[in-house]
This record gives sequence, C-alpha cells and structure tokens, in this order.
Amino acid sequence: MYGIGIMSGTSLDGIDTVLVKITGYSTETQLEVIAYNEYPLHKELVSKIKKACSLEHSHSDLICSLNFELGYSFCDAVKALLQKANFPLEKIDYIASHGQTIFHIPENKESLYRSTLQIGEAAILAYQFQTTVISNFRVMDMAAGGQGAPLVPYSEYILYSQSHKNRILQNIGGIGNLTFLNGSLNIDDIFAFDTGPGNMMINEACQILYNLPFDDHGQIAKQGKVISVLLDELMNHPYMQKLPPKSTGREDFGEFFVKDILSRYSQHEKADIITTFTMFTAKSIAFHYQRDILTKYPLDDVIIGGGGSHNDTLMQFIKDELYPIPVYTQDEIGYSSDAKEAIAFAILGNETLNHHYSNVKSSTGANRYVILGQITPKPF
Amino acid sequence: MYGIGIMSGTSLDGIDTVLVKITGYSTETQLEVIAYNEYPLHKELVSKIKKACSLEHSHSDLICSLNFELGYSFCDAVKALLQKANFPLEKIDYIASHGQTIFHIPENKESLYRSTLQIGEAAILAYQFQTTVISNFRVMDMAAGGQGAPLVPYSEYILYSQSHKNRILQNIGGIGNLTFLNGSLNIDDIFAFDTGPGNMMINEACQILYNLPFDDHGQIAKQGKVISVLLDELMNHPYMQKLPPKSTGREDFGEFFVKDILSRYSQHEKADIITTFTMFTAKSIAFHYQRDILTKYPLDDVIIGGGGSHNDTLMQFIKDELYPIPVYTQDEIGYSSDAKEAIAFAILGNETLNHHYSNVKSSTGANRYVILGQITPKPF
Repeated sequence: MYGIGIMSGTSLDGIDTVLVKITGYSTETQLEVIAYNEYPLHKELVSKIKKACSLEHSHSDLICSLNFELGYSFCDAVKALLQKANFPLEKIDYIASHGQTIFHIPENKESLYRSTLQIGEAAILAYQFQTTVISNFRVMDMAAGGQGAPLVPYSEYILYSQSHKNRILQNIGGIGNLTFLNGSLNIDDIFAFDTGPGNMMINEACQILYNLPFDDHGQIAKQGKVISVLLDELMNHPYMQKLPPKSTGREDFGEFFVKDILSRYSQHEKADIITTFTMFTAKSIAFHYQRDILTKYPLDDVIIGGGGSHNDTLMQFIKDELYPIPVYTQDEIGYSSDAKEAIAFAILGNETLNHHYSNVKSSTGANRYVILGQITPKPF
Repeated sequence: MYGIGIMSGTSLDGIDTVLVKITGYSTETQLEVIAYNEYPLHKELVSKIKKACSLEHSHSDLICSLNFELGYSFCDAVKALLQKANFPLEKIDYIASHGQTIFHIPENKESLYRSTLQIGEAAILAYQFQTTVISNFRVMDMAAGGQGAPLVPYSEYILYSQSHKNRILQNIGGIGNLTFLNGSLNIDDIFAFDTGPGNMMINEACQILYNLPFDDHGQIAKQGKVISVLLDELMNHPYMQKLPPKSTGREDFGEFFVKDILSRYSQHEKADIITTFTMFTAKSIAFHYQRDILTKYPLDDVIIGGGGSHNDTLMQFIKDELYPIPVYTQDEIGYSSDAKEAIAFAILGNETLNHHYSNVKSSTGANRYVILGQITPKPF
C-alpha cells in the first residue's frame, strides 16, 4: 500500500507530510519512505490556530471554521508532497492525519472532563483525494483510560525494535522524552516518559539574552562554562525527584522559570547561562537513564532525534555523560528525524486499516490495547 | 443487523435513541423499530451545551471537554434504551450517532469557512459498547459542496416514498424542515430545506417568560392573540426571502434573537408573544409550501413529525393555513414521530457500513452523492 502521513505539531512551524510504501502490519511491517515535505503554515493560519488554542480568544465559530480550513490546508500540503515526489494521486491507498491539537486535558479537573481535541477535517481530505482517511488517533486511547499521548512509541517499536537489543530513542524537542525499546520485543516492556527540558530553556534564554530563536549548532554553549551552583539547583528541581511515568511542559520549564533564573544569575556571563542550560538538558537525560533504566536493564545504544540532535554541543555533552554507551542521531541511522511524527501516523493509520491496535499501554496509561482513529471512507 | 440510532437535537429536550432491526440497504431496506427512548439531558449539561454554542461563552477547553462528556451521556442514553428494550448489548452491530451541533456555517462569510461542528465523542461509545460507531454525518456532504443539511430526506425516501403520491414530510424540532417526496420515486426529484424556526423560539420564550421548557400541547399559545406587527416583522426575516436549498439554526432564531424581541415587545401580554411565535412557525411553513412547492407540484398530503406535532395549537394553525390539503401527524400514520431522526441516523449508518451514499443532492446542494460519516472501528 501507499500511504500518506500528516502531522501538524504544537510548535506550529509547518505541516509535515510523508509518502510511504508500506506492507504488512504490526511487527511484520515493511516501510519505505518515498518522500518527505514540510509545508509552511502561513502567518494568518498560525494566528488563527493560536487563537483557537487560547482560552480567552477561542470561540465555537472559529473552531468550527478552522476545522474545515485546516482540512483544506492539509490538502495543499498533500498536493505539494505529491508534486515533490512526482507521484500519482490515484496510487494513494490512504491518508493518516494527526490533526492540529487545539486542547488537551490529561486529567479531570473541576468541571472539565479528561479529553483531547484535534481538528483538520478528514472529510475534506477524503473528498479531495477520493481516498480513505484515518484521523483522530488520540481519542480512543483516552476512552480506554489513557492520556492519549505519547503515540509515537508504537511506531518506534515497529521501526527500531531489535531482538536482544535494549535501545533508547531520545527525542529532544521543547521537552525531552524517551522511549525504551526492550530487546525482548514484547510491547508490554516498552515505556516512555519525559526526561525534563529539551531545547525549551536554551531557546528561551537565547531569545532573551541574544535575541536569537535558538543556539545554532550549540555554538554559544560551546564558548561558555558551566555555573555549578546553578546546575546543582536545576538538578534539584522537583521534576527530577518524581518517578516515571511522568510528563512535563512549558508550565515547569518555560518562560516564567527561565526569567526567574536569569534575574537571579544576572551577574554571570551570558554564554555561561546557555552552557549550563545545555548541560542541564544532557545531565537530566543521563540522570533518568541511570536511575530508571540502567538499574534494571543494560543499554545497547541511544538514538537521538528532534531539533536538539542538531545542537552539537548538547550532543557532545550527552555522549560524555553516557560514555561508553554509543549515541547516534536519528539521521545517522536511517529515518529522517524531521519526518518522524508524520511517519508515525502513516504507521498508525496502516494498523487501523488492518484492524490492529496501536497504542502502547505502558506509555499512555490505557487499560487496553485499542484500535486507534476514525475512518472516513473513500466517499464515492 | 441490529443498530442503534442516537439523535441529540438543537431543541435540547433530550437524547433520542432507537433500536432497530435492519436488513438490506438503499431501496431494499427493511426496517423494524424495536424500541425507542428519550433520555433526559440534565440541566447542567443543557447549560454547558448552550455555552458551547454561544459566541461569547464558548472556549476551546469547554468544547474539548464537552465532546467527551456528551460521549458519556450518549452511553447512558444507550444503556437506558437497552434496558427498556431488555435487549442484550452483545447483539448490537453498530451505533449511528448524529452528535450535538455546536455550530453550523452554511456559507463562507468574512473570515469563516463553510463548515459544521457536531460533538459527542464516538470513541467513548465504541469503547463502552465494544461496537462500531458511525458519526459526523454532515461533514462529507459539506466537503462535497453541500450544506450538510438536511440529511433526514434520505431516510424519508427509504421509509415514506409512495408511487404516484406527492407528499411532504414536515419535521418540527428546534428548526422546522420539510422533505418533498415526489411520486416518481426518483431520488433526484426529492428536495428538502429548513422552513425556519420550529419550536426554538417558542421554547426559548417559554423558558424566559414562564420558566417552562416548552408550551405543553400549545396550551399557552391557545390563550393568547397574535401581535400582528410582530408577526409581520418575523415574516420579513431575511431567511424567508432566501430561496431553497437553505438551512438555518440557533444562530438565526436562538436565544439572542428571541431576547431582542422580548425586550422590544415587553409591553405585550406574555401569552400573546407565545401565540405569535407559534403562528410564525405555522405561517413560515405554509409560506414556503405556497412559494416553493405548490407553484410546481400538486400535493397529496402532509405528514408532521417532531416535538411540534404534539403542540395542538400549532397543529391547528398549520391545518388552517394549508386547508384543504390533508395534514397528519407522523404517529397517525406509522413510525413514531419522536423517534424519527434517531431512526434516520440508524438508516444512514447502515448505508455507510454498506458503502452506499446517503445524502440527497437536491436537498443539501451537494455536487455528488457521497458516503456519509466517519467510522470508529470496534476497538478490540
């Protein structure tokens, strides 16, 4: 089968699309990536999405309209992908679309039910391309008592599991998160959790101190020195003490947290702050490996993906911390790091069409393995 | 097959559920209604739905949460139905759920795309009852260029078409809508559109003026007199001038519209307001018959369904307006009027599972016949 995966992430930097050739399913899956494309989200659309996500500015009319508008944008993204790949539309068997997350409530709180909302109308895609579309992957896991996230571990299990090899896939986006793939190949032995900040604190500090969006290839961090009192303080953050499963986000390591540190450490060199934050990301990763994994399992290798894998200083820090465990970037060993999530949903869509589950209970906390997603049939 | 249909209408008077035995599909459909139940929507839920529909009070968190909360309410409604019918869950082959309409934008306007939004998470139903669920019926028709409404005509065509008999099925729910079934039995000769408000304005005014959810059997309307200046104003509403196909909703005739009238006509008797709103529903129906149907076709009979068919004053007003055309209630001629829309979605769900279209192009304005709905697979 030929399938397309579409991912539009919370970072709002574009619509990731991937065209794959896929045969079999579950552990028999054979996957070949034919083409990848990142389609830009234009400015007005980004501002509508931000409005739809915000508590003050979102309204039913905007969410209703944006669900369809995003459906059309996803169509444009798929057209661009097919054009880039010079691939005929008629050969596409399905499209799997994650959608744009508008809201996510992992636990009941006050009058709100645990729930999640992704939009980007699947019917628009199905009609435009006369194909089957699978969408809304997170809701069934939540119906089964899970948090609806993370869903990527299933695709990592399919793509990266190797017999007799214990492997960590470490993603470094805004937040750092890992998936542990056990060499037993038993899906119940997989687990995943957030290790703490990924690029979030580094980026925030680069913005404030240097007016730069991020530390390109870790050039700033390379010049500074670690402020050990600050590093100690960071390593004593309550999130470090918590045991997995656990997740974190902007509420713990975002703007507020960083600004407080910058004001208290303002007598220090700017580069030293960036170096310390970079070391914190590396050490918080290594800390979790040592406490939560190496005490139970030997580890054969670590594969690093996400934007952080392009930060050479961060990569060096991680390698030093984990030595002698081999550390690779995802690009070094195969599938493009940027295409990762779009590939994940192409895989999940294929599982659904084959009536096979694709949540990882130990990652999401679900009570059962369940078939994810909703199928919009080829309309005529 | 045994199927369940669920309808939660804009009138917000309850969740209609029906259990049917269904064999065949399209014009070969054989349908038997085994049980019907109306499950009450509790007060807090009604107020949350109204909040989610309103432009001022809706927010992304509420819509996210309410989608799941309604999913659980639909489960409760199905449980009550199965209990009433003393029917075993395991024998259910599918559930078809319309969902609760939160917003409907029939045409592009300003920055808003034509779109529709129904909520009530299908995954919750599918997980709870371990069955296939079909939902979100309106979106594909809109993707195909239609207005996504009305969808009931297809089921009326299946259930009520008679050779050589021109017939109108008039539904009076929150909104009034008609289906014209041509004695030719050709689906292309069917048309349907919304005639304007059904009970929506009457109910809203009963709530505000009498603290009553509706005008029971039209007893209040029976006592009042028509305020002719108000009736004239209403009959000049822009929706009356528009030609079909067309559809309307709470955004035209809901709370905001009614409150404005009540404030401007506060010197009038309360009962006179209710009588005038009731007459407006009757006259808006008759107006459309005269302008859009009787000018082209003779009419053999009119069958009235929906909650409005229990409003004796409204029924009398309609009979007077349409005399000498015979007017029946749906209950008088067969299938329960209250169950009508729930039955309709049970039929539409069956068509989808049989890979058959179920929109009526001439009713919705769609460019093509398309398979409606999204299928949530039996999860395990």
